Amino acid sequence: MNFSRTDCLARDAADSLAPLREAFDLPAGVIYLDGNSLGARPKAAAARAAQVIADEWGKDLITSWNTAGWFDLPKRLGDRLAPLVGAQPGEVVVTDTTSVNLFKALAGALAMQSADPRRTAIVTERSNFPTDIYMAEGLAGWLARGHTVRLVDSPAEIPAALGDDTAVLLLTHVNYRTGHMHDMAALTALAHEHGALTVWDLAHSAGAVPVDLHGAQADFAVGCTYKYLNGGPGAPAFIWVPGRHQAAFTQPLSGWWGHATPFAMAASFAPCAGIGRALCGTQPVVSLALVECGLDVFARTDMAALRAKSLALTDLFIALVERHCAGHSLELVTPREHARRGSHVSFTHPHGYAVMQALIARGVIGDYREPHIMRFGFTPLYTSFTEVWDAVDILKRILDDAAYDVNAARGAVT
Amino acid sequence: MNFSRTDCLARDAADSLAPLREAFDLPAGVIYLDGNSLGARPKAAAARAAQVIADEWGKDLITSWNTAGWFDLPKRLGDRLAPLVGAQPGEVVVTDTTSVNLFKALAGALAMQSADPRRTAIVTERSNFPTDIYMAEGLAGWLARGHTVRLVDSPAEIPAALGDDTAVLLLTHVNYRTGHMHDMAALTALAHEHGALTVWDLAHSAGAVPVDLHGAQADFAVGCTYKYLNGGPGAPAFIWVPGRHQAAFTQPLSGWWGHATPFAMAASFAPCAGIGRALCGTQPVVSLALVECGLDVFARTDMAALRAKSLALTDLFIALVERHCAGHSLELVTPREHARRGSHVSFTHPHGYAVMQALIARGVIGDYREPHIMRFGFTPLYTSFTEVWDAVDILKRILDDAAYDVNAARGAVT
Repeated sequence: MNFSRTDCLARDAADSLAPLREAFDLPAGVIYLDGNSLGARPKAAAARAAQVIADEWGKDLITSWNTAGWFDLPKRLGDRLAPLVGAQPGEVVVTDTTSVNLFKALAGALAMQSADPRRTAIVTERSNFPTDIYMAEGLAGWLARGHTVRLVDSPAEIPAALGDDTAVLLLTHVNYRTGHMHDMAALTALAHEHGALTVWDLAHSAGAVPVDLHGAQADFAVGCTYKYLNGGPGAPAFIWVPGRHQAAFTQPLSGWWGHATPFAMAASFAPCAGIGRALCGTQPVVSLALVECGLDVFARTDMAALRAKSLALTDLFIALVERHCAGHSLELVTPREHARRGSHVSFTHPHGYAVMQALIARGVIGDYREPHIMRFGFTPLYTSFTEVWDAVDILKRILDDAAYDVNAARGAVT
Repeated sequence: MNFSRTDCLARDAADSLAPLREAFDLPAGVIYLDGNSLGARPKAAAARAAQVIADEWGKDLITSWNTAGWFDLPKRLGDRLAPLVGAQPGEVVVTDTTSVNLFKALAGALAMQSADPRRTAIVTERSNFPTDIYMAEGLAGWLARGHTVRLVDSPAEIPAALGDDTAVLLLTHVNYRTGHMHDMAALTALAHEHGALTVWDLAHSAGAVPVDLHGAQADFAVGCTYKYLNGGPGAPAFIWVPGRHQAAFTQPLSGWWGHATPFAMAASFAPCAGIGRALCGTQPVVSLALVECGLDVFARTDMAALRAKSLALTDLFIALVERHCAGHSLELVTPREHARRGSHVSFTHPHGYAVMQALIARGVIGDYREPHIMRFGFTPLYTSFTEVWDAVDILKRILDDAAYDVNAARGAVT
């Protein structure tokens, strides 16, 4: 690997994905390495919002539920997202939040396991994104049938945590802190051997790494559209229920959008056929519509090309940090092995929070996660090799000069 | 009451609320009587969306969660909405959907009743908006502790349906079909006499009629922002938990936005103090921000003035229909008594669907609800007396000429 800035400029010039950056608006002077938290803004988003607000809402008013296809948006966007995660048409809806969708998926999985009253354990990682654990706790506590959430402390402990009492193995595919990526197929197979079902959280996977839900024989999945998919701040999330489970899939958030005949106004719930039964209430149309602007960019490439560049970017970042910032107490927590790495890289530093604030002040936007973790996201749709070089150069200067305030007040951090 | 079009023009000229119409964009040639389904577009919405998308998202990116106040939006908007429903600051959040919020409120009420295992019944009306019934069914079914949903066929049957087994009385304050408005204080007192808690759905009340949740001693409430509050298509809903219940309030959708320390990334859920525990996951910021544009208009008036005009509009509509459309088999289903009437008026007609389609084709936009109900919403922020006169005149001509297609195909209707 070559490591000079000139080499990086040459790699950018040869990068077939480089033109996609033109689809995004990024502020001048900023190196944005936080697309794993909030994706950048597609240029098309402003015009799409104006269309929904001025024309569809302002002029066509209530009729837009039909004429502008507002009702169908969760399914139509789900079908467009499906190929990015190895799903089939009619298996994904974009709706609600990741937390709420996780509740539905977990509840659906527990319902499928209810024939065996021994199966009461939801197994997940202590290092999982907290809301996943919290939602599992909420569901288990409310069921009050002896359901428990069993936390394991490392991926290596997962096999021993599975047993005859396991209802569900709930995992986030790519860990939000470490960037560690699970082997979805192997862990799903292991869960199935123990009679457990799997629920996969793809928050840091969808649009970031190739995902093949069907190939892995996964049971349920949820994910986020506002990170690598660039759907906009807090954009609605998604849920995947494979065709083979849809007939058996039930969930307690049985709102009218999931009814077989929502406008018949029947006095009792009857779920519709297909993925629609994962819907609940009326969706926020403006935010939902913007999800399409991000998906439009993905339609111009494919996950294999994105993955190749993602690995090249993260390899380069790791190599440059280790070369230029040696001796500064940075420790890589992200796996070096490609098969175990997502699309972000995390280093610990004893003053990680302060160093990250110094980086942000100099235009390098990453983020910080307790404890001590500086997190850098690499989004091949708009991150260049030269930006990686420049970011590490700025990091090196901050560390060399100790140009960070170890007493920096901690605000709310995202 | 005077009934000529000239009289209506005079009333509009004297209407102190008439200038508020300038805050909305409504298409020329349309008489919009469907603000009870989707409120009209505040002119300010387009610029607010552009600000969120171009500046807050596009330029400030991830930092906007703090600097633009995205995280605080559910609470800040809740505080602005609170006075419209008789709530205090710190008691309302704008978040998620009405269906999901109803699930939280119902679950919270059931948890407060769990000390008495006899209290398993959720009492509601068969004529309630279906999703309320469906969500209650979903929750009761999942608890599987003998919980049931008891449907009453008329408001008169509510007293007899309450008893020692009643956990919750769940009512929609203003019925979506008939426009009938319950006596919130009296029914809450009755429920409390039986040891039951109340959950009120304010979908057709918030911004439509004066609501005094504290005055009525209500226990929980939810509502919608995209109808009379003009928050935009599918805009996030709201939930109210009064201060006196907040410490005891728990709900199973325990996502990270409801955690006491969301960024400490603790591995176990601990609810925050206050109304924040009604939050769950990350909210759709663009749609959420637009809610404020509607609330800004309400800040220029008060619910007493709006109610006076609303009743004047609905009185006029009823009188004109009965005067000009007599003999056409229209039957009023909305109460004549002011204290029992919301802000929309419904008439049945044997060919209600076809007549409504004919009205819409002529620019009078109301809507249709099974069975046979033509529904007309009156929103005093932007509906004029002259529009009421013109709408009835068009209805009269359609009925006089039988200018409607009784075989009109039924599309999906909103």
